[in-house]
Amino acid sequence: MSFDPATLRYDDRGLIPCIAQEEETGEVLMLAWMNAEAVARTLETRRVTYWSRSRQAFWVKGETSGHVQTLVDLRVDCDRDCLLAVVRQTGPACHTGRRVCFYTSVAEGDEVELMAPMG
Amino acid sequence: MSFDPATLRYDDRGLIPCIAQEEETGEVLMLAWMNAEAVARTLETRRVTYWSRSRQAFWVKGETSGHVQTLVDLRVDCDRDCLLAVVRQTGPACHTGRRVCFYTSVAEGDEVELMAPMG
Repeated sequence: MSFDPATLRYDDRGLIPCIAQEEETGEVLMLAWMNAEAVARTLETRRVTYWSRSRQAFWVKGETSGHVQTLVDLRVDCDRDCLLAVVRQTGPACHTGRRVCFYTSVAEGDEVELMAPMG
Repeated sequence: MSFDPATLRYDDRGLIPCIAQEEETGEVLMLAWMNAEAVARTLETRRVTYWSRSRQAFWVKGETSGHVQTLVDLRVDCDRDCLLAVVRQTGPACHTGRRVCFYTSVAEGDEVELMAPMG
């Protein structure tokens, strides 16, 4: 069955959350948002492209930093309201310079930083 | 620093997305939503507890099916507007009986089912 981005379920802003996961390590890198056009551009260019809610503009991940995400696979969940982009991440995924955005653990009741920015 | 769920950034419905990842395999299982009370209950009980948007009620994952998620670690992202729950998943995470919700690949322009329901 041919895939049409319009068949996904977007929220009232026209957005769908997309989780980025590193193919090799399985690390969950980040979560950002896409609109239908960002989904189409990601599939066409193989460069993961989000919609920046703060800038209200397309956001080709790594376009300025060089920390690009190359698409390996794009997956849709059972409810068609969430995406999983399996990627190859160049450099850090997080704007803080850390490999992943989820670097703070709170499981034991305290906030603990799990990793430092990449050198 | 002690963690307070009120310091997270919730959307205009009072919700924050939470990605569930299997600790052992690194599989991304699903994405669902939490409110501040669901975050607190998850940390206190170690049973991952979401907020069901369709039922407008707390949703202790696996409470009826037995397919529970036991919390190993809860992580906050850099913007404090997304959570990553590292879990031990009993049985399938997906309501369709599949191990994960992201069982459909669209990377090559067609929808391809990657896995069948668990036996």
